[in-house]
Amino acid sequence: MSRTKDIPDYHDRNKDLSSKTRDEVLHRAEIDFEKFKKTHTFKFPTWLYGSPKGKLFKLEVEDCPRFGDEAFVEFDSARTAFLSVDMQVDFCGPKGYVDIMGYDTGLTSAPIKSIMYILEIIRNRTDIKVIHTREGHLPDLSDAPYNKILRSKIIGDGVGIGNIPKGGLGRLLIRGEKNWDIIDDVYPISGEYIVDKPGKGAFGQSNLPLILKNLGITHLIITGITTDVCVHTIMREANDNGYWCTLLKDCTGATDYDNHRAAIRQIKMQGGVFGWISDSNKFVSAIKSAFTNESH
Amino acid sequence: MSRTKDIPDYHDRNKDLSSKTRDEVLHRAEIDFEKFKKTHTFKFPTWLYGSPKGKLFKLEVEDCPRFGDEAFVEFDSARTAFLSVDMQVDFCGPKGYVDIMGYDTGLTSAPIKSIMYILEIIRNRTDIKVIHTREGHLPDLSDAPYNKILRSKIIGDGVGIGNIPKGGLGRLLIRGEKNWDIIDDVYPISGEYIVDKPGKGAFGQSNLPLILKNLGITHLIITGITTDVCVHTIMREANDNGYWCTLLKDCTGATDYDNHRAAIRQIKMQGGVFGWISDSNKFVSAIKSAFTNESH
Amino acid sequence: MSRTKDIPDYHDRNKDLSSKTRDEVLHRAEIDFEKFKKTHTFKFPTWLYGSPKGKLFKLEVEDCPRFGDEAFVEFDSARTAFLSVDMQVDFCGPKGYVDIMGYDTGLTSAPIKSIMYILEIIRNRTDIKVIHTREGHLPDLSDAPYNKILRSKIIGDGVGIGNIPKGGLGRLLIRGEKNWDIIDDVYPISGEYIVDKPGKGAFGQSNLPLILKNLGITHLIITGITTDVCVHTIMREANDNGYWCTLLKDCTGATDYDNHRAAIRQIKMQGGVFGWISDSNKFVSAIKSAFTNESH
Amino acid sequence: MSRTKDIPDYHDRNKDLSSKTRDEVLHRAEIDFEKFKKTHTFKFPTWLYGSPKGKLFKLEVEDCPRFGDEAFVEFDSARTAFLSVDMQVDFCGPKGYVDIMGYDTGLTSAPIKSIMYILEIIRNRTDIKVIHTREGHLPDLSDAPYNKILRSKIIGDGVGIGNIPKGGLGRLLIRGEKNWDIIDDVYPISGEYIVDKPGKGAFGQSNLPLILKNLGITHLIITGITTDVCVHTIMREANDNGYWCTLLKDCTGATDYDNHRAAIRQIKMQGGVFGWISDSNKFVSAIKSAFTNESH
Repeated sequence: MSRTKDIPDYHDRNKDLSSKTRDEVLHRAEIDFEKFKKTHTFKFPTWLYGSPKGKLFKLEVEDCPRFGDEAFVEFDSARTAFLSVDMQVDFCGPKGYVDIMGYDTGLTSAPIKSIMYILEIIRNRTDIKVIHTREGHLPDLSDAPYNKILRSKIIGDGVGIGNIPKGGLGRLLIRGEKNWDIIDDVYPISGEYIVDKPGKGAFGQSNLPLILKNLGITHLIITGITTDVCVHTIMREANDNGYWCTLLKDCTGATDYDNHRAAIRQIKMQGGVFGWISDSNKFVSAIKSAFTNESH
Repeated sequence: MSRTKDIPDYHDRNKDLSSKTRDEVLHRAEIDFEKFKKTHTFKFPTWLYGSPKGKLFKLEVEDCPRFGDEAFVEFDSARTAFLSVDMQVDFCGPKGYVDIMGYDTGLTSAPIKSIMYILEIIRNRTDIKVIHTREGHLPDLSDAPYNKILRSKIIGDGVGIGNIPKGGLGRLLIRGEKNWDIIDDVYPISGEYIVDKPGKGAFGQSNLPLILKNLGITHLIITGITTDVCVHTIMREANDNGYWCTLLKDCTGATDYDNHRAAIRQIKMQGGVFGWISDSNKFVSAIKSAFTNESH
Repeated sequence: MSRTKDIPDYHDRNKDLSSKTRDEVLHRAEIDFEKFKKTHTFKFPTWLYGSPKGKLFKLEVEDCPRFGDEAFVEFDSARTAFLSVDMQVDFCGPKGYVDIMGYDTGLTSAPIKSIMYILEIIRNRTDIKVIHTREGHLPDLSDAPYNKILRSKIIGDGVGIGNIPKGGLGRLLIRGEKNWDIIDDVYPISGEYIVDKPGKGAFGQSNLPLILKNLGITHLIITGITTDVCVHTIMREANDNGYWCTLLKDCTGATDYDNHRAAIRQIKMQGGVFGWISDSNKFVSAIKSAFTNESH
Repeated sequence: MSRTKDIPDYHDRNKDLSSKTRDEVLHRAEIDFEKFKKTHTFKFPTWLYGSPKGKLFKLEVEDCPRFGDEAFVEFDSARTAFLSVDMQVDFCGPKGYVDIMGYDTGLTSAPIKSIMYILEIIRNRTDIKVIHTREGHLPDLSDAPYNKILRSKIIGDGVGIGNIPKGGLGRLLIRGEKNWDIIDDVYPISGEYIVDKPGKGAFGQSNLPLILKNLGITHLIITGITTDVCVHTIMREANDNGYWCTLLKDCTGATDYDNHRAAIRQIKMQGGVFGWISDSNKFVSAIKSAFTNESH
């Protein structure tokens, strides 16, 4: 039998080697499942992360199959980061990359007001960390895969990444250009963080994972554009890496409305395959209940 | 002025430091854009990867805005890998994870025949490398984020990752269980590769990137399930890492048909934001033209 | 001036954008530096990770320049993992890889007793998590870079990775082989974790980072072999990723004693460029003081 | 028997599943080993990477056990990158980080002349890509692990990362500061690349892997400082990721001479556990033989 030769297996030695840790985790999940049935709440797991460092707040999230009409996720404010993804001129402003490609920036700029609203609440009332991301390439284009450059040039009919469109603000998607920077309405303020990334995602080639770790973050509130591209990619990566992710759906937008709606829906499959869906009103309610009568 | 203190900038020293490499790449893209307008083909870039090691083949891909009715991607067979993503009992078979959650495995098993068809052609006629992936967790559950375990338990009404469903084949999504293994119809044969991964994606926590590098792969043909979850996540990561990715749409499926369709459509935005879309018939035609009169 | 075109810079908009977070962290470091001068202790940072989940224990570490004669690192036992790196037959046993290459396994097996001693204390008295790593390649060798295979074949005079040496136990460095498994003396027991990795390090291509995150680990105690190769690589990676790393020097060994000593010394440069150095006696003392009169 | 439950194993299904690919690679290694015995050369593997895109050159490397007196590594110039690691004021100049910590910058500045010499040859005669790295943190310190900040403050007696030393040029190890930038002697010129990284290594949190991939690099020539810290960490990571790495020993330096020597020696263990060792004279000879009578 080939097995003794071919198998990556440490279980030969002790058939129960894995059972102890497995049973502990499954027992924990059993307890939390029973609690969930009564409270409809994904409690902040103090057994895992320790006691809260900030304030706990409970955010209502959209129903999922078998959840019933409402469910909640509990956050520790001091371990929560609010992500504003790629709110750059290039993706939602005039003469930016999305505009040049011929898409309607009305769709990608739709979430601006909701994000502004949330940012104001977060900044004035909470200790939630705020992290902004920007997609963009080094001026020498060394961090842009060639197929990305070429495809952008074709869809842009000759004007792609690294080119300056007619009447444009600068080279498309290049760091340092005006079109690449974050729009004024949601621009970072002192005390907030910015992550620059060459791709749609942020976990392989940027310092986002390191910053999240340095800040002690466990839960993410995700907003920005575009829903189905950068927002989704970052949410997928963060979820695979163990972060508890909630998307605020009215704080996101895409170049196509159907793709936006589908992206929201995809998240809710399988009991929340990438996390949870909520919205700005629910978020503000949650913050207001938890941080009542306080000014930070 | 704060700049001299605060800026990550090497451009002070030489304003043209980045211009040479940038101009070279943009000039290359200009040439390839002109060629594209005539040939509608994304040529295999020999200037970047060297001359072909295997056979070149041209795969028709779906039109994108401004592409016209047809476009092609050219592959070097010896630098191409065919990915069959997560074709496991847990995702498309009876008593597997998706079945237990209450989804229709008719949808997720739909691509089986097309993948079988493609595999037969690839195995008999080409030197394209075949890589299968499997999602699954170690028996001790150490590589499963707790929120993933808990959500699966709730959607499964008490039976989630690591549990054995009533009448089930084994623990859900656990490595080594029958339900976790690849289905017979598309099971790997000698000479093919298998990648095990704990998440939806495969670039942060598995050896897929290393295997692709060791095999000298530049282009990927992507198939498997589910379209909007693991297939999409891997395609996003591979694309961010510079691989030229094409999805064969009838070789994929999802737990929800609308999500499947949207996932296909999302790929085609922005001139192919994550790569290209083709199908099994087009793929087989491409292979047959290139590998005529040959038996490998 | 080229700057407005070429710079990755968000500091234009607000010259103080970065000052708030910077000043907060530097102020914190100032406070901790003053405390350190009095206590010579790197306190467990509750402001960052929250209050302790387990027991705090203070481990004496070797002096570094300006530290004086003694210094201490404080750990939260529930957030500490003990790493036993690559204690495999291939690295310290007869007929293993290191033996075949002609090195003295007396040097690499030297730390066995110290690790056994520590493991006994940890297992009987503490809630410290134990993680074992193993270097090894898939049976199909797909995760072995070709230059690694070739170099091993040359140094082994024809017998390298994947080959079975004369009178050997199995293929060298291949998962599933007897020579590849962990030696009996320090074999994992139920409740402990195992990480398989294809390289010297463990942060790019294994699930170690995910497991550390899932377990809520902040501090590492590092042991195993070989000091200058796998142990050092993992310590470097963990340190770059923000883990607080301490090596127990008598629990490590290398194929060459001078390299072992130098590896220890390299860690202590620059005030502890990769972490701290301690030993098994100091570790046991620390555990005994903190966990007195307890049996877990 | 527990196996059917606990094993990550696809080998049940076909005991020869892995043998085909394994045998192919081992056969290849067998051939190359026989060639090596005659030529003492690690040939550029065209079977893996394709035919050369630039010029082949053969670099003499130091003998390793069983190699005999001389050995060679063959490079394809167009697939080679020359790395100049962290040649920053902070590591080798006056009032930089290393100077402030009290180390002798005579040791870390020793390789400057050799690197200048090599750079001149590479720039004037070859198509080898040149990549410079810089260690440094964002002005807000978000990408600096707290233990790194604190240790630097202690070793610097109150002046660490992010602080301005008395009479210093700027904040230590902070991007944008004069002390953080590359020294004049080996400053990048147009057409060269710069990678910024927050850690000692460059594969987890910087865009170096993406740039190497975008440029089609397979082999690295590594130089810079400090030998045992950043240079070694990058070499370890690159080696784990399949790059063929050669260090030019007189083009490196460390804060301590013994550590420098040991770092060189550690690389040569086990037939070249992290790659090969050569020096600037050998490198220049190799370039001159291959690029005779040419001016690029």
